[in-house]
Amino acid sequence: MADLSGDDVQGPVIVVSNRGPVSYACGEGGRTAERGTGGLVTALSGLARHLDDAVWICAALTDEDGVVSREHDGGAFALDIDGQQTGLQLRMLELDPDAQHKFYAIISNPMLWFIQHYLWDLSKSPDITTREIDAFDNGYVSVNTRFADSVAEEVGARGGRATVMVHDYHFYLVGAQVRARCPDVLLHHFVHIPWPHPDAWRVLPPSMREAIFNGLLGNDVVAFHSERYARNFVLGCQELGLIADLESLEIDLGDRRVVARWYPISVDPSQIETTAQSGQMAEHLKRLTANRREHMILRVDRADLSKNILRGFRAFDTLLDDHPELAGRTTFLALLQPSRQDVTEYVDYLEHIRRLVADVNLKHGTPDWQPIELNLDGGFDQVVAAYKLFDVLMVNAIFDGMNLVAKEAVLVNENDGVLALSENTGAYEELGAFAVTLHPFDVQQQADALFAALTMERRERRERRLACAAIVRENTVAKWLHEQMLDLRHLGGHPPAAPPKN
Amino acid sequence: MADLSGDDVQGPVIVVSNRGPVSYACGEGGRTAERGTGGLVTALSGLARHLDDAVWICAALTDEDGVVSREHDGGAFALDIDGQQTGLQLRMLELDPDAQHKFYAIISNPMLWFIQHYLWDLSKSPDITTREIDAFDNGYVSVNTRFADSVAEEVGARGGRATVMVHDYHFYLVGAQVRARCPDVLLHHFVHIPWPHPDAWRVLPPSMREAIFNGLLGNDVVAFHSERYARNFVLGCQELGLIADLESLEIDLGDRRVVARWYPISVDPSQIETTAQSGQMAEHLKRLTANRREHMILRVDRADLSKNILRGFRAFDTLLDDHPELAGRTTFLALLQPSRQDVTEYVDYLEHIRRLVADVNLKHGTPDWQPIELNLDGGFDQVVAAYKLFDVLMVNAIFDGMNLVAKEAVLVNENDGVLALSENTGAYEELGAFAVTLHPFDVQQQADALFAALTMERRERRERRLACAAIVRENTVAKWLHEQMLDLRHLGGHPPAAPPKN
Repeated sequence: MADLSGDDVQGPVIVVSNRGPVSYACGEGGRTAERGTGGLVTALSGLARHLDDAVWICAALTDEDGVVSREHDGGAFALDIDGQQTGLQLRMLELDPDAQHKFYAIISNPMLWFIQHYLWDLSKSPDITTREIDAFDNGYVSVNTRFADSVAEEVGARGGRATVMVHDYHFYLVGAQVRARCPDVLLHHFVHIPWPHPDAWRVLPPSMREAIFNGLLGNDVVAFHSERYARNFVLGCQELGLIADLESLEIDLGDRRVVARWYPISVDPSQIETTAQSGQMAEHLKRLTANRREHMILRVDRADLSKNILRGFRAFDTLLDDHPELAGRTTFLALLQPSRQDVTEYVDYLEHIRRLVADVNLKHGTPDWQPIELNLDGGFDQVVAAYKLFDVLMVNAIFDGMNLVAKEAVLVNENDGVLALSENTGAYEELGAFAVTLHPFDVQQQADALFAALTMERRERRERRLACAAIVRENTVAKWLHEQMLDLRHLGGHPPAAPPKN
Repeated sequence: MADLSGDDVQGPVIVVSNRGPVSYACGEGGRTAERGTGGLVTALSGLARHLDDAVWICAALTDEDGVVSREHDGGAFALDIDGQQTGLQLRMLELDPDAQHKFYAIISNPMLWFIQHYLWDLSKSPDITTREIDAFDNGYVSVNTRFADSVAEEVGARGGRATVMVHDYHFYLVGAQVRARCPDVLLHHFVHIPWPHPDAWRVLPPSMREAIFNGLLGNDVVAFHSERYARNFVLGCQELGLIADLESLEIDLGDRRVVARWYPISVDPSQIETTAQSGQMAEHLKRLTANRREHMILRVDRADLSKNILRGFRAFDTLLDDHPELAGRTTFLALLQPSRQDVTEYVDYLEHIRRLVADVNLKHGTPDWQPIELNLDGGFDQVVAAYKLFDVLMVNAIFDGMNLVAKEAVLVNENDGVLALSENTGAYEELGAFAVTLHPFDVQQQADALFAALTMERRERRERRLACAAIVRENTVAKWLHEQMLDLRHLGGHPPAAPPKN
């Protein structure tokens, strides 16, 4: 595991993301603070221990987040979790609900998410109408401005120098706004989802797409999960008429340059392994083991259109057609987390999933065997228990920025489980050589690949799983962050001076 | 108009396209031969007059085409139309109906057409199943092989040297097959539809997408309508691991190189103008003029998903919402040609169109005024009559290789008609500066653009129309072909020797 230390960054660090490291709730026993489970939270929390001054700006998403925010007058406060100091300061921004809805439920999702995953059914949708234009101007722009204002305040309070790290597709406009007001900061934006080809951006009118590119070009570094995404970003800059080099991935803006880089995100192995060894596993393992047949195919996904859940079930249907000997001996366990149910496309998608599962179960099932077990309300403990048991993990995403399920699962599986992985995931660049490749639109190929994985010799299964696990264990999320920090020091030229300790 | 002469090409020319220069039918008065109306037919027929030896290989598409083909034992014959020699030889290939269906109705349309216009609704379709794999192997591959065999025969009959010009998305595999058997030919493939970014090709499994790229790489020149498409092709070659240069648009295959080029296709102005002046116009003009209100918006399209017909009507709906003063004074005349009604997506699309028209007419119409006049069965004469009369021509295609409607219409309009043109058409590169720009997904912007066009000062309308017409008159389809021929001589290095005259 890479050594993460304060040497990586000098001076204050300001992190911006929509979801913060903690989420507050108010229960009968008083206020509770639930720590975010994502790798980003873990990595940045780990980094914070080595920093003199780190502040994380996020949205106040729960009612209790709002209460906490107001208790600190919307300013930063030292973040304690379970009575322990984290070393982080937290600033939660309470947003106008109308602006937040427009920002999140109209522009960020589905608009940008669908564009970046190539999900729009272009002959029918989307329509850009006054609703979308209003949501951009009075939602996306105003929320981005609100965050940029807060960043500028925090930078100002630190004498104008800091390293600012902005995360994901919610905040494409922050970079340019901060740059304009804080010329001496080092600005870094990480895009956690795919960056598509320039043509995909043509769904947006020029004013919006140019705002997005110009917003990102306010940064010193625009970072992605893979070279492919970084190249697509540079191609988009070329379309804007900028001098942008596909070899060096640099954009020359005359007075300064912007670099596109790629750093494949990962997980925190020790965190997953700790969960896998926790006491809560026993009950889940018992139930899953009692239910299981000879073969268990597993998928774990948000119920998102990009995850290709329908074709996964169709492939399983085809598998059972092609190999009737598997009937009664194989179960496809699908642990799906319903998502974004305020967006029509997602409601429809979940309905399609339910119907398809019913169809496949009706077609192939018997009184004592349901081919697909669809579970929409499991927690992370159940997920990790299933990770331990699967024979084949299916990750057949249409397009996926990285896919951390693949990385988590290979770490803790105890059944020589085979990773069946879409060629269109970021993770494929690292793990593809030891996975069974899935071509996400090719239902027949996926059925064949599932069969190959299910019938693979135990020794080969073991070797592949161990190889995948070794790669993930080597390339941790801490290393991911570390490498970005090193590059930032190098690329920034003159790192911000260390501030006085508060 | 560029001078097209035999100097452009030495030696025999072999043309390959699915639809040939003529279509036979058998009526009461005996066999009739209807000449194709496309610019390609005109241009190549024009060229043929200057060539010693030109043979056009196409599919026998009608029953009578099949009869004609059999009369010549499937070989080439001198093509006469209306008793006049054309100078062309024609070879019509009768295809196995099953193979032809797979080749055309499954792979070419919708599969390739949808991929190349970004039309797939990827979270739902397409599925690659045994049906598609079979259609590729036993339809697309076998029809391509059949055409390649015929090309090789014609080349062989000419001592192994010829210039072979293959057209469009039906025949991506022909180049490599001909190259393997006829190493001394000069091979040129023109793609008449957009070439999308590499990610779009990921809908196909690697075996198919690599077959397509490798097929095209059998050519010396792969030609497109715009630099954008040529660049996308080169990017796709880079993804295959080839040495491909985005500046020179050359692909280095070691023993030889392939160049991507672009030549925007056009129309034959004299042909359109002749039609516009023909006697058949009078009746159509009379009817259209009697029906017209103060303003006429026109669209002329195949009812294809790429044409963005739904959003066009939604924009008109928005226009009438925003500007009630236009009610009763404006008609949107839509001359749509139903297309590919053997493909589900097209049947559904036409149904959506009908319903939307009914909705808009119900919402805004009055007993004596229907806002949208939908016409699904007009001929070309009616189209040209409407070209003469429109105030605004709407071309709002999602993506369109070129769009010749825009070019035809500006030539013959007699009403200072304004071209409202999608930024995503090939034609936009030439005509965009004098058109009103449409952003095809932005319904509000299209409504605003229609209003701007309808209320534009007469003088500006005239100047814009004249500027567009001058550009089209300068860049004819003859020039388009001429430039390709010149480049072929240059790029080919050593042009094939002139064969003995037959």
